[in-house]
Amino acid sequence: MNLASPPEHKTDPELTRREKVYLVIFGTETPMGRLFDEVLLVAILFSVLIVVLSTVASLSDAYGYWFYAAEWVFTLVFTLEYGLRLYCSPNPFKYARSFFGIVDFLSIIPTYIAFFLLPGAEYLLIIRLRRVLRVFRVLKLIRYMREANVLGRSIYNSRRKILVFFVSILVLVTIYGALMYVIEGSEHGFSSIPKGMYWAIVTITTVGYGDIAPQTELGRMLAALVMLTGYAIIAVPTGIITAELSQEILRDGNLRSCPNCERYGHDLNADYCKHCGAPMEEEPLD
Amino acid sequence: MNLASPPEHKTDPELTRREKVYLVIFGTETPMGRLFDEVLLVAILFSVLIVVLSTVASLSDAYGYWFYAAEWVFTLVFTLEYGLRLYCSPNPFKYARSFFGIVDFLSIIPTYIAFFLLPGAEYLLIIRLRRVLRVFRVLKLIRYMREANVLGRSIYNSRRKILVFFVSILVLVTIYGALMYVIEGSEHGFSSIPKGMYWAIVTITTVGYGDIAPQTELGRMLAALVMLTGYAIIAVPTGIITAELSQEILRDGNLRSCPNCERYGHDLNADYCKHCGAPMEEEPLD
Amino acid sequence: MNLASPPEHKTDPELTRREKVYLVIFGTETPMGRLFDEVLLVAILFSVLIVVLSTVASLSDAYGYWFYAAEWVFTLVFTLEYGLRLYCSPNPFKYARSFFGIVDFLSIIPTYIAFFLLPGAEYLLIIRLRRVLRVFRVLKLIRYMREANVLGRSIYNSRRKILVFFVSILVLVTIYGALMYVIEGSEHGFSSIPKGMYWAIVTITTVGYGDIAPQTELGRMLAALVMLTGYAIIAVPTGIITAELSQEILRDGNLRSCPNCERYGHDLNADYCKHCGAPMEEEPLD
Amino acid sequence: MNLASPPEHKTDPELTRREKVYLVIFGTETPMGRLFDEVLLVAILFSVLIVVLSTVASLSDAYGYWFYAAEWVFTLVFTLEYGLRLYCSPNPFKYARSFFGIVDFLSIIPTYIAFFLLPGAEYLLIIRLRRVLRVFRVLKLIRYMREANVLGRSIYNSRRKILVFFVSILVLVTIYGALMYVIEGSEHGFSSIPKGMYWAIVTITTVGYGDIAPQTELGRMLAALVMLTGYAIIAVPTGIITAELSQEILRDGNLRSCPNCERYGHDLNADYCKHCGAPMEEEPLD
Repeated sequence: MNLASPPEHKTDPELTRREKVYLVIFGTETPMGRLFDEVLLVAILFSVLIVVLSTVASLSDAYGYWFYAAEWVFTLVFTLEYGLRLYCSPNPFKYARSFFGIVDFLSIIPTYIAFFLLPGAEYLLIIRLRRVLRVFRVLKLIRYMREANVLGRSIYNSRRKILVFFVSILVLVTIYGALMYVIEGSEHGFSSIPKGMYWAIVTITTVGYGDIAPQTELGRMLAALVMLTGYAIIAVPTGIITAELSQEILRDGNLRSCPNCERYGHDLNADYCKHCGAPMEEEPLD
Repeated sequence: MNLASPPEHKTDPELTRREKVYLVIFGTETPMGRLFDEVLLVAILFSVLIVVLSTVASLSDAYGYWFYAAEWVFTLVFTLEYGLRLYCSPNPFKYARSFFGIVDFLSIIPTYIAFFLLPGAEYLLIIRLRRVLRVFRVLKLIRYMREANVLGRSIYNSRRKILVFFVSILVLVTIYGALMYVIEGSEHGFSSIPKGMYWAIVTITTVGYGDIAPQTELGRMLAALVMLTGYAIIAVPTGIITAELSQEILRDGNLRSCPNCERYGHDLNADYCKHCGAPMEEEPLD
Repeated sequence: MNLASPPEHKTDPELTRREKVYLVIFGTETPMGRLFDEVLLVAILFSVLIVVLSTVASLSDAYGYWFYAAEWVFTLVFTLEYGLRLYCSPNPFKYARSFFGIVDFLSIIPTYIAFFLLPGAEYLLIIRLRRVLRVFRVLKLIRYMREANVLGRSIYNSRRKILVFFVSILVLVTIYGALMYVIEGSEHGFSSIPKGMYWAIVTITTVGYGDIAPQTELGRMLAALVMLTGYAIIAVPTGIITAELSQEILRDGNLRSCPNCERYGHDLNADYCKHCGAPMEEEPLD
Repeated sequence: MNLASPPEHKTDPELTRREKVYLVIFGTETPMGRLFDEVLLVAILFSVLIVVLSTVASLSDAYGYWFYAAEWVFTLVFTLEYGLRLYCSPNPFKYARSFFGIVDFLSIIPTYIAFFLLPGAEYLLIIRLRRVLRVFRVLKLIRYMREANVLGRSIYNSRRKILVFFVSILVLVTIYGALMYVIEGSEHGFSSIPKGMYWAIVTITTVGYGDIAPQTELGRMLAALVMLTGYAIIAVPTGIITAELSQEILRDGNLRSCPNCERYGHDLNADYCKHCGAPMEEEPLD
């Protein structure tokens, strides 16, 4: 039996039990495979919801036992899933070291750590940490977002411009933060350059908590400059993404196929196919 | 008499009384129909204004009686309008279950509920609730926004990308909220993961109330990361809408076809075809 | 003498004194006319600066006398300018009733009102009001912004979409404000629907002062919804303006002139002039 | 020896020692030149990091001596670099007066000033000032951002529109600030027109600290207007940058000309001209 060859192209009777399990758990093309994915998606969302709600004191007091039970049920279900993935994968080690293999592992292990290893002193802190790690289960959702492609490609295409933009922002933030540290000083909350940089980020991104705010006249003038800078450069990432996204959408929608070689990607006003040179038919434009 | 056929295309003497009322209330093409719509528009705006102002304590003390009277006048007017719509509609049940049928009903019923059913104990709360429901009258305005079409279509076309975007935001917000809950903890206001998620939404959308703000150094570093993330991804919905809107405006008939060679893509002010040189017909420009 | 005909097209000896003054004060094409405009621009900026600085207590204590003197100098200069404009204008009444005629009048009258009519009791308040009216001098700057054309046209072209957008925002703000009034109530600062609407505007525009903030769990959930709504719809006006501006810039830069009739506005791929039908020459594209 | 001619085009044995040093320090095309740049980049980042961290009280107490030593090491390294640049530059005076020459000088001089000239009384303040000037070292990073070209050109092309936009913002801010000064007055924190303008900038840029906020009903109504204005005009710079950036990306050579009919506008992957059907030459795609 050659497990390295993809089992999708075999007919049903040829499949071993491992291959059948593989098709259900890893595949998305059989009815059972889709059902498995949907059930898993609901289970992930519920388990994250329970972790989130169990930190609310009033709910935790009232339903603490049920949260605890549900957490164990989900942990056992996900452990079973993890075991099955290891069992049926053609290459278990490759799966275990893959991004989703690690996420799957991290999403079950904290409950066991809290139970077997650390029942004692640092209990509270670890439970909180464990809960956070459990939230990483939500990352599994990424697997289900095929529609993210166009967005992802646009962001990928403009990664260099975005990097240049962020380096410029960091240079600005360092200079502004240092200036505010000198101008305002510790007595007005700017007790160090990193704190000044935090203020500059809060201001330049237009978040504006107000927990640290300039109180001298010179500081306020500089702050006004920082805000106007932020207002102007908020346009830059928007411009980058929009320009790329427009290109991406234009490329997607305003093209047609050649009637001869059937390749896609010809402009609407093309008279000849740019790949095989055959004349293009006229097409009515709506 | 066949009420299902639209009465707009009949000449005046053929119309029954119900059809005449239909033309005034539902139609917008006769002078009376337009006048009815304009009067109704003013009535809606005034009734919402009165509900809004009657919650201001100083105004309520001084003009409470007049507000009460005006509310009953508007309720009776809208009840009459609702009755006429039911009476003259070719299919009253279809109207009553339509979006605007329900809005029309909801905008009159709270005044009656407060008067007949609940004059007693939970008076204050119910009055407030009733007033809120009355505010939904403002939804009636949607009927008058025909220009919203291009905007609406752009948002509709990009609904999937926007959905992907919001799911990503929610995943980010859950992870950031959980991390802040662990880092800052109850003593700094992050008393549960939902509260951390609320803070993450306040921060990532750059609203930044400052009612909950990080106070540890690690928390501030994470907060700076959240803000820069928010700053970067604010570009994404803008990009999506802009790209769609550009397409929509481009598509929106700024071009026409040549009557001779039938090629498309000529400006509206062209006198001759730019491809074959044949004269273009004049087209009225609005 | 026919003052109604524009004096710009006469040669120098033909001009009367009034016409010469007209050319200097209203015109921008002679060296004297440009100099006059530049001097006036500097005078306006200085007079506004003095009004602004004279409200700062520390500066007012130290230089109060100089501020008072400078205010009278500028008022007399602008009075002289206003008189000259009335004197040399071909139609003084039309000028006096025009937008800039009213602004010119409003920018000099408050100083006189404070001096002659109200030296007494409500002194402080009126001085402040007068100062504000003086600031309207800054509106005169609009006259100098010819570059604002492309921006202005883009905003003008999209005025209907922007109107629809703002009506939608107001509808949303009314509903959200009313809901928060019911959910949070007076004890958390939401003492009336208008106050709730103020909060909704502060939140939906992502300003987020934090002077009024939700404190119940339901209120925070609604607030999160408001913020995400604001985050999503901030994209809409950006999209509208960007799409129009792209069109405007494209229209401006990617066109060429006909070699025969010399009219501008032909696409780069045009073979024949769309106005006179003459063949277009090939043009090298860089 | 003619130092004015660029030494890059000579073979190795022809070079003098000064030219060899020039190739390493100013050049980026030899392996040594690239290594020098990378080492310098790391040194700049570390020196800025140390200046920033040395202002944090807890770190400064613990590692103050090491920070002091590291600052001297970096100062000596940058002094050596500055000397070598002066030594090997074909035109030392031109380098010393160039933007990067001044930045290089400013990044070393504060340490010497603090040591030789001002060891005495205003010690604390000067140390802070010196440290701030040291932070300008971060500006050296600009040299390494070649990818910033497209962004820079877009911003340069739209500089006039951005200027008009900022002048409009300042006019608005002056008027709004003066109005709020009159409406709210000193008792609510609006103690002068400049403070009102500061508030207007904080609000119009949607930063919203909340340190100064309107408290009268009229003030809140005006504030709501300011916010909605800010919300609408945030779209304008975004639109300007996006439109320019789209042009810049489009122009950036995504199309080529047909070698037969010479018409422009063919995709890079076209095999045949879409207008005349002639075969296109292959072009390498990067």
